[in-house]
Amino acid sequence: INPEKGSPGAAEDMEAAESFIQQAMEIILQEAVKKATNVKEKVCEWRSPEQLKELLDLELKDTGESESKILQCCRDAIRYSVKTGHPRFFNQLFAGMEPHSMVASFIIEAIKTSQYTYEMAPVFTLIEDVLLKTMMKLIGWEEGGDGLFNPGGSMSNMYAVNLARYRYCPDFKEIGIYASPRLVMLTSQECHYSIAKAAALLGFGTKNVYVVPSDNRGKMIPSALCTHVSLQGAVPFFVNATAGTTVLGAFDPIDEIANICEKHNLWLHVDACWGGGALVSKKHKHLLKGIQRVNSVAWNLHKMLMATLQCSAFLVRDKSCLLQRCHCAGASYLFQQDKFYDVSYDTGDKSVQCSRKPDAFKFWLVWKAVGTRELEYRVDRALALARYLAQEIKKREGFRLVIEPEFANVCFWYIPPSLRNLPESPELWKKLHTVAPVVKERMMKKGSMMIGYQKHGDKPNFFRMVVISPQVSKQDLDFVLDEIHRLGKDL
Amino acid sequence: INPEKGSPGAAEDMEAAESFIQQAMEIILQEAVKKATNVKEKVCEWRSPEQLKELLDLELKDTGESESKILQCCRDAIRYSVKTGHPRFFNQLFAGMEPHSMVASFIIEAIKTSQYTYEMAPVFTLIEDVLLKTMMKLIGWEEGGDGLFNPGGSMSNMYAVNLARYRYCPDFKEIGIYASPRLVMLTSQECHYSIAKAAALLGFGTKNVYVVPSDNRGKMIPSALCTHVSLQGAVPFFVNATAGTTVLGAFDPIDEIANICEKHNLWLHVDACWGGGALVSKKHKHLLKGIQRVNSVAWNLHKMLMATLQCSAFLVRDKSCLLQRCHCAGASYLFQQDKFYDVSYDTGDKSVQCSRKPDAFKFWLVWKAVGTRELEYRVDRALALARYLAQEIKKREGFRLVIEPEFANVCFWYIPPSLRNLPESPELWKKLHTVAPVVKERMMKKGSMMIGYQKHGDKPNFFRMVVISPQVSKQDLDFVLDEIHRLGKDL
Repeated sequence: INPEKGSPGAAEDMEAAESFIQQAMEIILQEAVKKATNVKEKVCEWRSPEQLKELLDLELKDTGESESKILQCCRDAIRYSVKTGHPRFFNQLFAGMEPHSMVASFIIEAIKTSQYTYEMAPVFTLIEDVLLKTMMKLIGWEEGGDGLFNPGGSMSNMYAVNLARYRYCPDFKEIGIYASPRLVMLTSQECHYSIAKAAALLGFGTKNVYVVPSDNRGKMIPSALCTHVSLQGAVPFFVNATAGTTVLGAFDPIDEIANICEKHNLWLHVDACWGGGALVSKKHKHLLKGIQRVNSVAWNLHKMLMATLQCSAFLVRDKSCLLQRCHCAGASYLFQQDKFYDVSYDTGDKSVQCSRKPDAFKFWLVWKAVGTRELEYRVDRALALARYLAQEIKKREGFRLVIEPEFANVCFWYIPPSLRNLPESPELWKKLHTVAPVVKERMMKKGSMMIGYQKHGDKPNFFRMVVISPQVSKQDLDFVLDEIHRLGKDL
Repeated sequence: INPEKGSPGAAEDMEAAESFIQQAMEIILQEAVKKATNVKEKVCEWRSPEQLKELLDLELKDTGESESKILQCCRDAIRYSVKTGHPRFFNQLFAGMEPHSMVASFIIEAIKTSQYTYEMAPVFTLIEDVLLKTMMKLIGWEEGGDGLFNPGGSMSNMYAVNLARYRYCPDFKEIGIYASPRLVMLTSQECHYSIAKAAALLGFGTKNVYVVPSDNRGKMIPSALCTHVSLQGAVPFFVNATAGTTVLGAFDPIDEIANICEKHNLWLHVDACWGGGALVSKKHKHLLKGIQRVNSVAWNLHKMLMATLQCSAFLVRDKSCLLQRCHCAGASYLFQQDKFYDVSYDTGDKSVQCSRKPDAFKFWLVWKAVGTRELEYRVDRALALARYLAQEIKKREGFRLVIEPEFANVCFWYIPPSLRNLPESPELWKKLHTVAPVVKERMMKKGSMMIGYQKHGDKPNFFRMVVISPQVSKQDLDFVLDEIHRLGKDL
């Protein structure tokens, strides 16, 4: 090694690097933007793991590959990836291509910084603060609060549980929960699985998550919650209400739950990862009525509001630095107290992470570009389209709604002709259970669309369609129903 | 709302979106790549929070802004962000611009998917598997193991603690740790703060992290560990050894620690987030001698190996699906067991996250492009440059090494002329303590370079230089020492 030797930092190497980046950007624009959002192209180019391993030369070797080979790797990675920005992608609770968010993501990646200190992320620190405050206004926290962006809603929900525990007993941070009475978390049967994961990780155990029954629309039953708050031999300290459940899109009645929590001094968290988007809509924000009363909120802007992954806000109404006190470790190499600027702008010690991505920028730029009214229009339009789809399902033979949609989730069965005249019986349900997986296989192998399915409680497999993106039209929804019939009519 | 109405998905809107993305890409290439890596440009354009708030129009409004205004927002975000790819950026344990990793990041953002299922991330699932296996070979796990990529090394360290607890008693996942004897974690005084954060979050409490003393080179003293493994009233279950400590760059003696852990059946985790890069170097891998014997490893490829943020691997030697069993929740809407492909490729339930970024691609593409030998060359070159810098520091008047460097960390004091003739005394140390913060303030306001500083134990503030990027030359290191003197000689 001779460090005098011209390094890849020399001018000619930087020129090569820039040329490579420029060529790759062109591929991304053509393949991952233009083609990937074109309704005439496939949503996915399905290959089995074995086939894909053969197609891609995955092995890592002693020597590198040529630039043209690497550019081909880029093309292949795009080609065989799922096109989540395609107008016929409905498989998850995110979809669509938001150009401003995509650009913000590119900038974040090019800047390559970590949001622990103002000195390392001055712009992104201020942007996170403004975005969180604007979100708090929509929640209705007139006096503000605190918060930060996390890598995903599961993390945000976990933060809520940890803060609730810290408020219950700050000493636990130092001494642990060994000497504690058995602490119990309350949530509905329809909640996201991250609540159980948080219970396991934080040392409570999944059996100390008490499941409150939901009604037939998927909403937590407040009176059932009441019976759980006074327990013998255990201390409830945390209630999770869900605003927009994963499968049914149901909203727990926050106001009624808040009454109970206030009475019993329980931390009330709202998992609005999915349903939070309704807060931008005057027409639909009633779904989260009472949210201004809760202690904390998780809200993923990468779901209904289409930010690139991930853009997950955790917001807490507390103004006593609970977040900082609960999580701080005061690392002296990072959070020096003798800095030349106001170190209250160093927000990193609020986090359980060290390096943290500046995710807020991914949505701040969208909001700046389109304004609140356009966000509202998009949400209203998505929910109107979901209602249109539900109406179509009711009209069409062989389709049956699982539940009347309240949000963007439209859950339904497709019943092939061979099953239509069978009486309702366990045998019919058993046969129906096998339909969605086969239709799913066929749509993926054809590449025509992607829709999720699942069993749910005692219900056999059904499709869950979700409308999010303004790039989706009524024609796309008609196509979905037609295509399901085409793919499944022989079953 | 009229869902029939032409939506932003109509052809003209997509054209506008593509044009916007293309213009933004050009700005990124010019400002965040070319200019940001040019040694003649500033590393940072410092503004105080108050100044920056005035410069940027941060407020989010009802109506959106014009395209030209948004493009200006993009330029401003880049302009006032720190240029971590600049050859004179040495402020953190990451630095430099790796063009392949940057491109991989752009692709990930454009593809916008989540790595929970093969169906959603076929390419990235296979790539994560190959990359993890190749890393395991370097570690020396001949029979393989398991692992996944996490949003940062703190998360990876936390995974290790949780797995160790699960191995100690799988029932804790369900029943919590209430009935457990007091569990204790062992780590050195020099370890990363994420170990303490994990103890707090997982319910153990920070007081149950027992701190093992380190020697004067920053390495854990194995005999001191011995005195901690047999405790009254507490059960040690987890030992963290650090390969490359944050400040000094010290390596704990893994082989000797492994002897003790094997004897007492303790889970041994190595936090190699920073020092793992040495494993690609035949010359330097001895620093991690014995790593093939440990239970788990955290290794951040975004540090010494220059992947874009974040690219943090957690690897575990276990082959009994411990990772899956410890973390799984089996969500039926995501991990359907009646899928048409081999669902063992759905890796998402190994994670405590739900949505998870396909971070492995950020380094797979680098490795593919440059090969193992070039990675080795880069690490060897960085460490040779660090030694060069240490030699220069020893030669120059007014500079003093804190410790002889073993890795890429070069820790030193700058002693201004006014302090050079003072006798070593608490008063001198007190004065010296104030030097680094002022020099740091001046370098940032000038924008000439960025270097970290911190106090450490009883030592007053010193600089920590870190050499990583092949874009850094000897001339840059000479500049750093000259510039510190220029900025601090009047102090």
